[in-house]
Amino acid sequence: MDSYSIGVDLGGTNLRIAAVSERGELLEKVSLGTGVARGRDHVVKDMCDGVQGLINKRQGSGSLCGIGIGVPGIIDMKTGMVRESPNLPDWANYPVRDEIERRLGTRVILENDANSAAFGEQWLGAGRHVQDMAMLTLGTGVGGGLVLGGRIWHGMTGMAGEFGHITVDPNGPLCGCGNHGCLEPHASATAVVRMAWEAIAGGSTPGLARVASSDAGLSAKSVYDLATQGDEDARKIYRSVGRALGIVLSDLVNALNLPIYVIGGGVSGAWDAFAPSIFEELQWRSLVYAATSPEPSQKQGASAKVQPDGVNKTIITRSQLGSDAGLYGAARLPLVNGC
Amino acid sequence: MDSYSIGVDLGGTNLRIAAVSERGELLEKVSLGTGVARGRDHVVKDMCDGVQGLINKRQGSGSLCGIGIGVPGIIDMKTGMVRESPNLPDWANYPVRDEIERRLGTRVILENDANSAAFGEQWLGAGRHVQDMAMLTLGTGVGGGLVLGGRIWHGMTGMAGEFGHITVDPNGPLCGCGNHGCLEPHASATAVVRMAWEAIAGGSTPGLARVASSDAGLSAKSVYDLATQGDEDARKIYRSVGRALGIVLSDLVNALNLPIYVIGGGVSGAWDAFAPSIFEELQWRSLVYAATSPEPSQKQGASAKVQPDGVNKTIITRSQLGSDAGLYGAARLPLVNGC
Repeated sequence: MDSYSIGVDLGGTNLRIAAVSERGELLEKVSLGTGVARGRDHVVKDMCDGVQGLINKRQGSGSLCGIGIGVPGIIDMKTGMVRESPNLPDWANYPVRDEIERRLGTRVILENDANSAAFGEQWLGAGRHVQDMAMLTLGTGVGGGLVLGGRIWHGMTGMAGEFGHITVDPNGPLCGCGNHGCLEPHASATAVVRMAWEAIAGGSTPGLARVASSDAGLSAKSVYDLATQGDEDARKIYRSVGRALGIVLSDLVNALNLPIYVIGGGVSGAWDAFAPSIFEELQWRSLVYAATSPEPSQKQGASAKVQPDGVNKTIITRSQLGSDAGLYGAARLPLVNGC
Repeated sequence: MDSYSIGVDLGGTNLRIAAVSERGELLEKVSLGTGVARGRDHVVKDMCDGVQGLINKRQGSGSLCGIGIGVPGIIDMKTGMVRESPNLPDWANYPVRDEIERRLGTRVILENDANSAAFGEQWLGAGRHVQDMAMLTLGTGVGGGLVLGGRIWHGMTGMAGEFGHITVDPNGPLCGCGNHGCLEPHASATAVVRMAWEAIAGGSTPGLARVASSDAGLSAKSVYDLATQGDEDARKIYRSVGRALGIVLSDLVNALNLPIYVIGGGVSGAWDAFAPSIFEELQWRSLVYAATSPEPSQKQGASAKVQPDGVNKTIITRSQLGSDAGLYGAARLPLVNGC
């Protein structure tokens, strides 16, 4: 009888839970309309109820290995507490891991959500043929995760992979972290909307102004839709997203020389609007990329090839698991620690 | 009877060779006035003669484990050839490793010189109490090396650790690699001299102008000497070196969360002129550094403490082995592969 584990993705508006077999098959998935905004106690209760529901359903058809939870914040791996999270203000100094373990009577592993997404992609997605990869998740903020030797690279205090706070332009826009010019205020959904408003304020952007006053309003998605319709102002915003990503990816390629860098998160849906600028920057900003870049046919769009080890080309590609990357990665956490 | 190995540091103006015991004791060191400028065949011959001289001297007092050579360039680890080196133009496609092995009848390992320096510091210098560290070497260019889990991190094709080509300012000065704004044209000895000339061209820099027209002329060292005498124009140049280093170190701290980052190479002699700017940048550009920064007394100057694992502070410090870091690191290469 196969083991399985349960992965939880604790998002801003949705709490998603999945049972996944040790071979990576999705056995069951539920999505609860409980966002972190409802507060810690609600979220923990709904999470435990949801997990327990899946466990009850699976009874008799496999043994539970444990529960992995992807959390939008910095995790103290030793204490199992959320160390810092703008989205989970009331979670600090709360023994979330121990509390969930107590309620469910099974092993729980907490992990940063972007690390979980990277771990998922390396297991079953774009990185499944390599042991080393980096991932950037473009959402409300910009997260990052690093997998080295098939394991999440946590660094000294579990804070590694903060690629969203690599400096793109030392005098660039202010970031929530206090620095100027991080990747996050250049390439997050929030940044796309800010750039759209800035463009409107600068005048002569009829397309963006029309979207802003429509019912849908400005969002990373609506700006992307406008870009696909050929609106030059919207396209310019996504080119700027791509340039910022290209600079940070150049830094990572020069520093780490990994085989694969994966871009996920909601904004990655606009891949075709920003990806060409990424490759332009990489080609001249990274001597390591220039020496290892794949043929043009391999590197554009979602068709970028997944490569086995030993091919020695640097691949920059979209997430293959999409919004499920973090869910699979979270489910994998207990599995790699032995069931 | 102890094993020993021989390390070679192939520099621009000097070829240095040392016999080092497996416990890291320096047994013998020679420095030959043979720079790479004399051409490949001269260098290889002098290197083999020098190594053979040391081997003859050690006869009967230990068994030779192998020879490690730190080379200023990108190495193809598989073929043992120099893949790319601005300083060794006639070495491309020459089987240097095999040729030296043939002449000396013993195992030879080639390594990038900055990787060797990092490996030396992690063995016997500032990183001796940790398993993970990064090193920047500030010389004619800016090199970098990464040690993870006590091993040099080579990346997919041996090109990892090119920290000198991380982008500091996307619109900054042109780098030899073709990119604009890399760390190298901000923090190398060459960059210091260029900035001094730019300041002189801008006028009203009497101190720099005087040095430029003196017998000694402008060098990173003469600009530093002027800075220590209180010359504001010279001090400004080193503050700008520190800011650029601070930006790249912030990127590395955010991405990797390592316990120690070591700065070596000739320009690191000007540590007290540039280090304060490094720490200023780090404090606000890296949320990971802000969460893990040591007490002020620990972080300034050469007095930065070497920390054991588990202290969870991010240390930025000077090389402790100075110009011997690469020599020790090269000697260590055969030792870690089993004698």
